[in-house]
Amino acid sequence: MRSSCSCAWLPFFNNTLSPEREDCLGFARDELALGLRGLGLSVPVSLNQTGDGEGFSIQADGEGWSVSGGEQGLLYGVYRLLIRLSGGLDPALPLTQPRFELRMINHWDNPSGLVERGYAGHSLFFSNGVFSYLPERVRLYARLLCSIGINTVCLNNVNVHTPADRFIMPEYLPELAKIASLFRPFGIRLLVAVDYSLPARFEPGTADPLDPAVQAWWKKTIDRVYQTIPDLRGFLIKADSESRPGPYLYGRDHAQGAKLLSVPLAKHGGILVWRCFVYNCKQDWRDTATDRPKAAYSNYTHLDGRFDANVILQIKYGPFDFQPREPLSPLLLAMPRTGKALEVQLAQEYTGQQIDLYYMPPQWEEMLADMKGANVRHICAVSNIGDDFNWTGHDLAQANLYAYGRMAWEGTACAARFGGEWIKLTYDLAMTEHDTLLDMLMDSREIYVQYTAPLGVCWMVTTQSHYGPQPEGYEYTAWGTYLRTTSDLLGTNRTETGTGFILQYPPAIQEKYADPAECDERLLLFFHRLPYTFRMRDGRTLIQRIYDDHFLGAARAGALTDRWMSLKGHIPEAVYAHALERFERQAANAREWRDIVNTYYFRYSRIQDERGRVIYE
Amino acid sequence: MRSSCSCAWLPFFNNTLSPEREDCLGFARDELALGLRGLGLSVPVSLNQTGDGEGFSIQADGEGWSVSGGEQGLLYGVYRLLIRLSGGLDPALPLTQPRFELRMINHWDNPSGLVERGYAGHSLFFSNGVFSYLPERVRLYARLLCSIGINTVCLNNVNVHTPADRFIMPEYLPELAKIASLFRPFGIRLLVAVDYSLPARFEPGTADPLDPAVQAWWKKTIDRVYQTIPDLRGFLIKADSESRPGPYLYGRDHAQGAKLLSVPLAKHGGILVWRCFVYNCKQDWRDTATDRPKAAYSNYTHLDGRFDANVILQIKYGPFDFQPREPLSPLLLAMPRTGKALEVQLAQEYTGQQIDLYYMPPQWEEMLADMKGANVRHICAVSNIGDDFNWTGHDLAQANLYAYGRMAWEGTACAARFGGEWIKLTYDLAMTEHDTLLDMLMDSREIYVQYTAPLGVCWMVTTQSHYGPQPEGYEYTAWGTYLRTTSDLLGTNRTETGTGFILQYPPAIQEKYADPAECDERLLLFFHRLPYTFRMRDGRTLIQRIYDDHFLGAARAGALTDRWMSLKGHIPEAVYAHALERFERQAANAREWRDIVNTYYFRYSRIQDERGRVIYE
Repeated sequence: MRSSCSCAWLPFFNNTLSPEREDCLGFARDELALGLRGLGLSVPVSLNQTGDGEGFSIQADGEGWSVSGGEQGLLYGVYRLLIRLSGGLDPALPLTQPRFELRMINHWDNPSGLVERGYAGHSLFFSNGVFSYLPERVRLYARLLCSIGINTVCLNNVNVHTPADRFIMPEYLPELAKIASLFRPFGIRLLVAVDYSLPARFEPGTADPLDPAVQAWWKKTIDRVYQTIPDLRGFLIKADSESRPGPYLYGRDHAQGAKLLSVPLAKHGGILVWRCFVYNCKQDWRDTATDRPKAAYSNYTHLDGRFDANVILQIKYGPFDFQPREPLSPLLLAMPRTGKALEVQLAQEYTGQQIDLYYMPPQWEEMLADMKGANVRHICAVSNIGDDFNWTGHDLAQANLYAYGRMAWEGTACAARFGGEWIKLTYDLAMTEHDTLLDMLMDSREIYVQYTAPLGVCWMVTTQSHYGPQPEGYEYTAWGTYLRTTSDLLGTNRTETGTGFILQYPPAIQEKYADPAECDERLLLFFHRLPYTFRMRDGRTLIQRIYDDHFLGAARAGALTDRWMSLKGHIPEAVYAHALERFERQAANAREWRDIVNTYYFRYSRIQDERGRVIYE
Repeated sequence: MRSSCSCAWLPFFNNTLSPEREDCLGFARDELALGLRGLGLSVPVSLNQTGDGEGFSIQADGEGWSVSGGEQGLLYGVYRLLIRLSGGLDPALPLTQPRFELRMINHWDNPSGLVERGYAGHSLFFSNGVFSYLPERVRLYARLLCSIGINTVCLNNVNVHTPADRFIMPEYLPELAKIASLFRPFGIRLLVAVDYSLPARFEPGTADPLDPAVQAWWKKTIDRVYQTIPDLRGFLIKADSESRPGPYLYGRDHAQGAKLLSVPLAKHGGILVWRCFVYNCKQDWRDTATDRPKAAYSNYTHLDGRFDANVILQIKYGPFDFQPREPLSPLLLAMPRTGKALEVQLAQEYTGQQIDLYYMPPQWEEMLADMKGANVRHICAVSNIGDDFNWTGHDLAQANLYAYGRMAWEGTACAARFGGEWIKLTYDLAMTEHDTLLDMLMDSREIYVQYTAPLGVCWMVTTQSHYGPQPEGYEYTAWGTYLRTTSDLLGTNRTETGTGFILQYPPAIQEKYADPAECDERLLLFFHRLPYTFRMRDGRTLIQRIYDDHFLGAARAGALTDRWMSLKGHIPEAVYAHALERFERQAANAREWRDIVNTYYFRYSRIQDERGRVIYE
């Protein structure tokens, strides 16, 4: 693991750390003193412990400030105070409480040290099949997360393979306990991703959740885990999903399956996070009745009320899989009697792989608007972190992690506000340059969508790598992501006359999409199958709109390089050069997308670009 | 490595071996005695050494037979006599000489033990980065090859990576010498696939062929190799091909590049086999001027006369890459003053991966007919062998190896004759069953082409694995294998008005293909870009012909299972069951090809099947 790292948005700490302490209040005081020293400030700050929660407030207090809150709240308050002082903002804050209770990060780190869908180097925690880390860098990471309010981290991949399946067994528990102790002072508790079939490899010889031997085995195993790590947050399970084992193997439903673990976990205050990414990944492409976006809702809604209180269903934001533009997953709006977590993916698997700039909060704003009123009490993000010096591969991808923490706390995605905060904390820019960079962040998602995903058509990515275009790469595979483009029609009819996916939504959302003439055009082809000559509301044909978007998107992607070059001299040179190389790769990638998607539809439609731009044969 | 193996087409030996002997004539006598014993025959056979060559004759001699020939010819004659006796054929043969001088097998075995594009288990020679083999099984393999006249084998992959690059260095030479000694009694000499850039990793620090230090290094290295293995056949090089290093890296042409090795090899009677699989594997898909089939011819023809006499250009049979139907490579018909070898691929990379039945000689017949009169003096085949019990994954794929050896000797591909021989030697079938099996072999290639490659359209395979269909998987990649299908047109214009590839042929072959109205219809779309409604000579439209072929091909593939089932009880049960499972997989694969290719063109053309069969949307 690489040992050196950037300070990210906490430059004033200059990567120094307070000593480890058992005493939380003491630790908060140490961090406060260290931070103020780093900021070169000698302003008096008092910490007033009031109760026990995560909330806090910051008030002016004479020449200085007073932070009030529970034990954990005080530490959050200290970091917020330092951050606001560092960013030149008024630190005063009325009492603030987190919108989401569990604010989680999921690492997809494998014991080998490779990170599944990781774009920022190797794992911070594992190498060559064993726990392998630099305690200092892990603590710096924990502080980074705590400073934005993250309280739960899962270190190992949801796809659990040997030896990660043994992390909850006696041979690995001491290791797990050791790393848990590095996160503990920051109020971060660990989840462990667990293999549902584990007991089948021990005495029970099966993992059937209704088998008493299996139940006894899990109880014993969980008791032992909690003996070693009494404050473990709990388990994370990917069951019956993409060939991972689960209760379906034994003819049990997921409520039966979850109870097997939630009961013994509850005894210790542990939770069970249960991923809902369940769909038929062996679909026959000829089967047009099955529509993958319907899968999560169909698999779970009838189970509402049957999960224990300590179970949290973890639901991807869209009904497909982390695409740059999808409607909200209808499952998030269902199951009122079940604990739910919204899952986003900071790792840019489908959104440019930390080569292309993709600032996520504008997308989150759309999601949260549709999610309004739903009882989603928790939130989770797949990590974009690795052992790269800058943590996230692309320096600017740090902004996604920062904004994620802020959103998890505030419950709103205030893209511009969080982006502005992150810039102020991270770089020392005058107003013009600050605005240039913020505009780049703010534009980036729309630019990416313009050159990749035409009006809600997803899955044009290259198979396996998921970077760059291969429009029909997945067309005849078993993954359920079919375009079914013909020379007459494109898009998918998911309305009542089509796959019926739309019926999984409450009426208000159905109305947003049901009629092609009224449908939010950004998702037009997600919900409708239409001719190339369909008229958009501005009078353009659908195919012309696709061409225009791709020409424009690629041009705007190219222009990001110029905009970044205008920041030369204002951004630290190493960061500038490193990101410049990525902007150039993004521009090349965008040209590929532009030309391939345009050619792809041109070969079907044979309709020329009205403006005579080059579309290749 | 698995130790047990089937006897293949030499059941009478029952996998027993004569002792190793230095004395060739003695070894031939031992083998003869062993074989006759296995056949239960006590007929007298005399061996008359006459001269030194590979040729031999078999004559009736009283109650028995007399074999005459050179030292090596006698061993070939012994095996041929035994084979003919075993197959119930009249052994008498007038003097027979091999059509091709070097009759080679190329293994693509990696030191890891994995075989690149191998479909019959692991390597017979390597495991875990080292030479690792069972001498008995290697000798059985050498005998199998010798029995069909193979005289040259390359054990390691043409893509040479560490540690295989060191096989010609002192640390590996003793290992190489040891295995060479196992092949030697059978008249088989080894080639070594060599990394052209090797000297760059030693004192010279470069591999520039004009650098005197590099020349001296190779001379020293080659002298050392021949000190250890004086009868090594020579080196095999894949240079400037698919990112392997070569002379182009130093601004030198391939004649300059080859001379670097051919001169020091010649001193020891060694040869240099130089692969001509050179093309731009970083093509921009927008570039329609570059046409990959033109590459080999363009890279080499101007060098005719500049290669030493011991250099052999190894040329794939088709201008693309081992596709099930391609025209002959025009390079085979060019370069009259240069040594050339025809390269075929027994490994069924693009032809069903030893799951689907694909008997190759019918394809070879087409090739050899077009190659008539060309001075191609050598032949080479990529091996389909591994450590599977039956040697070739699919039992019936043994027939390809057998027929390859026979073709390499005879210079004709007599598909039915060699197939019949192989069946008679391998199984004990009555006439009806014999004919059933032979018909299956004979039909298999046409069936495979029918359900995979529409009228010369290649490259519809799944990327990377190359098994099963993914019609546009390679469409926008850098590999130069574009279909450019549109809703108006399909196929590629390679005539004078198109890419001009056709101009690389002599006039007689140009005429065969130039006019779409006259073109051999089996390659119509290889040479022409046409509308779906183009009329075939039987009056059908082009699209209807494609639909018909795919329905028919898949039906015939399905029927292979039934035909095989009619042999139950006649074929050894283990072989029967093992192959049956493959026929079932082939039938499923053929259905995928049928439906995907038909749907693919239907989505573009929107033309229904005239006969109303199901084409999926």
